[in-house]
Amino acid sequence: MGLIVQKYGGTSVRDMERIRQVARRVGAAREAGHDVIVVVSAMAGETNKLVGWALELTDLPDEREYDLLLSSGERITSALLAIALQTLGHPAQSFTGRQAGIITDFAHGRARIARITGERIREALGQGKVAVVAGFQGISEKSDVSTLGRGGSDTSAVALAAAFQAGLCEIFTDVDGVYTTDPNIVPEARKLDRISYEEMLELASLGAKVLQTRSVELAKKYNVPLMVRSSFNENPGTLVTKEESQMEDVVVAGIAYNKDEAKISVLGIPDRPGVAKRIFRTLADARILVDMIIQNIGKDGLADLTFTVSKEDRPRAAKIMEQLKEDLGIQEIQVDENIVKVAIVGVGMRSHTGVAAQMFETLADAGINIEMISTSEIKVSCVIDAKYFELAVRELHRAFQLEKEQAYHEKKTPLKS
Amino acid sequence: MGLIVQKYGGTSVRDMERIRQVARRVGAAREAGHDVIVVVSAMAGETNKLVGWALELTDLPDEREYDLLLSSGERITSALLAIALQTLGHPAQSFTGRQAGIITDFAHGRARIARITGERIREALGQGKVAVVAGFQGISEKSDVSTLGRGGSDTSAVALAAAFQAGLCEIFTDVDGVYTTDPNIVPEARKLDRISYEEMLELASLGAKVLQTRSVELAKKYNVPLMVRSSFNENPGTLVTKEESQMEDVVVAGIAYNKDEAKISVLGIPDRPGVAKRIFRTLADARILVDMIIQNIGKDGLADLTFTVSKEDRPRAAKIMEQLKEDLGIQEIQVDENIVKVAIVGVGMRSHTGVAAQMFETLADAGINIEMISTSEIKVSCVIDAKYFELAVRELHRAFQLEKEQAYHEKKTPLKS
Repeated sequence: MGLIVQKYGGTSVRDMERIRQVARRVGAAREAGHDVIVVVSAMAGETNKLVGWALELTDLPDEREYDLLLSSGERITSALLAIALQTLGHPAQSFTGRQAGIITDFAHGRARIARITGERIREALGQGKVAVVAGFQGISEKSDVSTLGRGGSDTSAVALAAAFQAGLCEIFTDVDGVYTTDPNIVPEARKLDRISYEEMLELASLGAKVLQTRSVELAKKYNVPLMVRSSFNENPGTLVTKEESQMEDVVVAGIAYNKDEAKISVLGIPDRPGVAKRIFRTLADARILVDMIIQNIGKDGLADLTFTVSKEDRPRAAKIMEQLKEDLGIQEIQVDENIVKVAIVGVGMRSHTGVAAQMFETLADAGINIEMISTSEIKVSCVIDAKYFELAVRELHRAFQLEKEQAYHEKKTPLKS
Repeated sequence: MGLIVQKYGGTSVRDMERIRQVARRVGAAREAGHDVIVVVSAMAGETNKLVGWALELTDLPDEREYDLLLSSGERITSALLAIALQTLGHPAQSFTGRQAGIITDFAHGRARIARITGERIREALGQGKVAVVAGFQGISEKSDVSTLGRGGSDTSAVALAAAFQAGLCEIFTDVDGVYTTDPNIVPEARKLDRISYEEMLELASLGAKVLQTRSVELAKKYNVPLMVRSSFNENPGTLVTKEESQMEDVVVAGIAYNKDEAKISVLGIPDRPGVAKRIFRTLADARILVDMIIQNIGKDGLADLTFTVSKEDRPRAAKIMEQLKEDLGIQEIQVDENIVKVAIVGVGMRSHTGVAAQMFETLADAGINIEMISTSEIKVSCVIDAKYFELAVRELHRAFQLEKEQAYHEKKTPLKS
């Protein structure tokens, strides 16, 4: 039956009743003959409580201390779940990041896992125990506690699955799986049975907040099959796996969106070399992540440049641009927060033509103006006015017939372009 | 100026405002030129919350998991206080039990400190940092988290003071120091300026819950001066120190009491060898701690034996006695929970006569019957009916003139006997 890794998120362990439920589910996997490693998050609300305390003291807590503080929530859950398992008669042992041998680099708050030694977990599994690992954390070579960033427990789970060559990594959360889009916006949104790592990456980074992006990258790298499913029912969930040929038949797997970006337009730039470099080097040095960038030459040989940053970084980015304005001879800077990015994602785009055209046509038919466009192999993103956000998602969902099972597989006809 | 160790209890760090206050006080010690090691407890209520969760799952949580769970509270405080210190401009670094190098035995829940390596603390102090250590916890040789029992942060502080040869260990709490007795019962109770380790041990183990008994034993063993004082004001506190000749002038230092004991009387025991041994061996094997024991021969060559146990252990102790009853030919077993133990404590008793007699006389004058008596070199304890508890404490306090500064030192006359 082999080894499986299960990860339970904050709402799945939010109180003792839920922890007992999780213990029953883990116990069932064990009774089915599996060796089980369980990774747990902090109980819902616990991490926010700790963050709140730190922010009462200072806006900028020391990274090392902040990591020690935040790592407490997962430790608490791991001990409680081990106790709950034992109470049900399942031998179990908890492991902190250190005891699990999860060695990270020194980047506090966003540490990357360097390697997993895992001797003690191996020993516990050999004794027939369930290994309950505190997620989200590891330990640096200097023996300080490090954390992996928000959602880091997903990454802990995938890394352990890779290190122990688990047959499956199940990510239990409070939704049934990955949907074609947000069911709160489109009631007809359909749960996907399977999706490729690549598609999941595009969906996750665009704001479908089911899995931490890094965990999907890691799963892809080590080819760990991920099952995203609910801990509140027995529904089968969505399998995130490597691309299979049949997946290409589905042109668009889902529609993602990101409401957290702001647009900065830099108008009337003298068209000479090095200007873009100067702008984006300055932003990068300030650790501002730029998402979409478009540039075009306008009239009089002057260029217009538009890019998006997160709303959080917007004030700093705008300030930096104002500082560069005179120096670079920029005529005008415009900032717009009333935008949203909508994207269609699907590996089938590689072999189908006319997908982008269908998207633009759908938006145009709905009277929605497209402010920016960006495309990749498996994604087309459009920035539009925020007020059209729900309308755009609904119209795209309908146009690509995502409510139907494997829509394009059935039709077998190319999209009009 | 040398090194000092400061320990702050749960109420002293109960919220961020209090933690900021503690940071200011620690900072003041640092600015006065001291190297400072700070030991912190969990924020008031945090440990009880964790205990409550575990007890929701089972009455008997696994000791290893329970220790990991309970150790979280102190870790959280240590990170928060380090952040608060840094915010005030004081370089600081937190240390878990492991990072502090506090190595314990394997007795989870009641671990004893085997040694303190402390390299990282030494390094931090060398860099001019305040070392903030999570109290109550250490790490076993197997690298599992262990805890030192309730109140264990006191022991952490004293052990660190001993290991680093600190000039003073300050225990900050929510009372001004050690009082002649409970001020809630006797409003005239007076704060002691100094008290010997021996007296403090008798007072603490009898229920004056200011310091964990083990911490006082450890302080005595390594001759660490302890200052018990309030973190809520600047009052000087009580110095717990080795016995000094002047202390002998004070015959009675304080009056302690313990409301948590029950009395078990075993009546009509055939007076033959081995009966007492059998009874107390059986109780010891059941891990029941027996406090006072008295035995006397009654009429017909039958012995009566009376002993006290904690109220918590009373049901188990009574059950064991019922099981032994027939076997040992005991006539009757009586259990009484309506008792209280009252004791007078003072190193001066060694060189003063008539102290016990004065106690008995005071109780008799108040119409209080004494059910059991037990004495040691520096203590006389009486078990009385619980309803006379406050009256007894008040009358004894008055009789020994404890409201007056160094009462017997001034009088210089022996007590009547």
